[in-house]
Amino acid sequence: MTRALPVTLHDVHDAAARLKGVAHRTPVLRSRTLDALVGARTLLKCENFQRIGAFKFRGAYNALSRLSPEQLARGVAAYSSGNHAQAVALAARELGTTAVILMPEDTPRSKVEATAGYGAEIVTYDRYTGDRVAIGEALAADRGLALIPPYEHPHVIAGQGTAALELIEEAGELDALLVPVGGGGLIAGSATAAKGLLPGIRVIGVEPEEGDDTRRSLQAGERVSIPVPRTIADGQAADIPGELTFSVNRRLVDDIVLVTDDEIRAAMRLAFERLKIVIEPSGATPLAALLAGRLDPLPPCVGVIISGGNIDVRRFAELCAA
Amino acid sequence: MTRALPVTLHDVHDAAARLKGVAHRTPVLRSRTLDALVGARTLLKCENFQRIGAFKFRGAYNALSRLSPEQLARGVAAYSSGNHAQAVALAARELGTTAVILMPEDTPRSKVEATAGYGAEIVTYDRYTGDRVAIGEALAADRGLALIPPYEHPHVIAGQGTAALELIEEAGELDALLVPVGGGGLIAGSATAAKGLLPGIRVIGVEPEEGDDTRRSLQAGERVSIPVPRTIADGQAADIPGELTFSVNRRLVDDIVLVTDDEIRAAMRLAFERLKIVIEPSGATPLAALLAGRLDPLPPCVGVIISGGNIDVRRFAELCAA
Repeated sequence: MTRALPVTLHDVHDAAARLKGVAHRTPVLRSRTLDALVGARTLLKCENFQRIGAFKFRGAYNALSRLSPEQLARGVAAYSSGNHAQAVALAARELGTTAVILMPEDTPRSKVEATAGYGAEIVTYDRYTGDRVAIGEALAADRGLALIPPYEHPHVIAGQGTAALELIEEAGELDALLVPVGGGGLIAGSATAAKGLLPGIRVIGVEPEEGDDTRRSLQAGERVSIPVPRTIADGQAADIPGELTFSVNRRLVDDIVLVTDDEIRAAMRLAFERLKIVIEPSGATPLAALLAGRLDPLPPCVGVIISGGNIDVRRFAELCAA
Repeated sequence: MTRALPVTLHDVHDAAARLKGVAHRTPVLRSRTLDALVGARTLLKCENFQRIGAFKFRGAYNALSRLSPEQLARGVAAYSSGNHAQAVALAARELGTTAVILMPEDTPRSKVEATAGYGAEIVTYDRYTGDRVAIGEALAADRGLALIPPYEHPHVIAGQGTAALELIEEAGELDALLVPVGGGGLIAGSATAAKGLLPGIRVIGVEPEEGDDTRRSLQAGERVSIPVPRTIADGQAADIPGELTFSVNRRLVDDIVLVTDDEIRAAMRLAFERLKIVIEPSGATPLAALLAGRLDPLPPCVGVIISGGNIDVRRFAELCAA
């Protein structure tokens, strides 16, 4: 007997309706040069052009929009050093509530400023001694705030799925969809949308070589923990899949392929020089997989979720020069 | 008595029909962050996403597509160290003919390779001792080739105007259109399209401070020559407006504003970090003008032609770090 999935295509459609006019409907880019290099028709869903520069706004806004008026009156909390921090901060501002964001003390100043710039209160902790989940939960409980997790929530997953929904609405048929895998929220939502709309589509996740926790977990049939990965793809440095996301991904994801940091750098550089777009390392892993020939067989028409573009010029140049 | 203009809206529509399915219909990007920074609704027509990475393909292809079968059988020639070289090379390949491109000996290898990559024959000359126009004309005459000038031709100008045509078709009303000015072909075509479709629109050119030959010429009412400008906006380093382009621009361009190299760098950096797009220095001058507050009064809704994005990562980082 098969248990019902925790998120359905209906939930993704519902999230899309909530996001309408609030999130950007990001462009789908194509390039003849890219098609020739890859050897397949390649459609890039550019979430680097999303508000806050990454797909994360979709899930955060959907989750916040489902809170009760009482919860919204009290405010929300989140823990993140990355795109989820800005996503929750902006979603809170859009919905007229306040956000408290827990960030490591050594978070780059630009990220702290961007998050504070959306009106959020920043609380810092020492990430070498503190457990962000425990601190976040205590903070939320103390202040009566609704804690918005980065991926372990059905509304977050449903929101993330709206990018794939838009891509398929625009593209029509796709043989495969490539999605970066970190905690697993983006691919869980994407797979829910994609398999719901196109049951024959292959949904393929991409992880950095050192951060292959989801690949190992799918092979083992259960969540496997790995040492904290060292990779330039900081948004994919998860050491274990989420429980909820894995319950979706084990049933809907067809395969996981891996890429090296050098392949990620090459993809970022190609995106810059040939496609004229800025992709952060985690967002470039599916493109890296295509360019490195990791898909076998190569499907004739591939959709790619370019998940984000938040990286400063200096860091980008350092990575691409190396 | 007013003489007829050498290029009309009809010519731009005709070019658009020829370019259909060959040139990309590039996206028009918007950003709330940008609107807030500028203080106006800002629509970016992204010719950095055009084939060969710049608007130049439009004019080159239109001009080549008008050649007779006999001319196409013999081939074409062009002189350019920049985007026009790749544009003519690719247009020639698309139309099944051959191109000979005259390039300075010290052209960056990446540009020579890109041009040769489209199948063009490269001929080099010493730009300190040689006159590219004279050498180009001699080469074309010797070999019986049709010489495709970078801007001094009605078909080139009409082709360049198709980007503005698409922008206005998509945007509807616009109060002003900002366009980079080098030799004057892009703005001549853009102004022809824009004033034809929206007679009340203001067409504003942007030049680098050191390369203000068109601004001086418009003020003088005749073509004025300046010392060869030193600017990072290499696509706008013209020392005198074209004769044909100036005959259009003196009648259709409302104003020219100037930007400094530092303002261009800041605009490139903002485009990278906030808009996630790569713009070459010449392509960033209109954005620089908006961000530096050069428009007075500021129109409520501004269209911007982002003319190109051909710059490598290393050079981009050097410019933005400075």
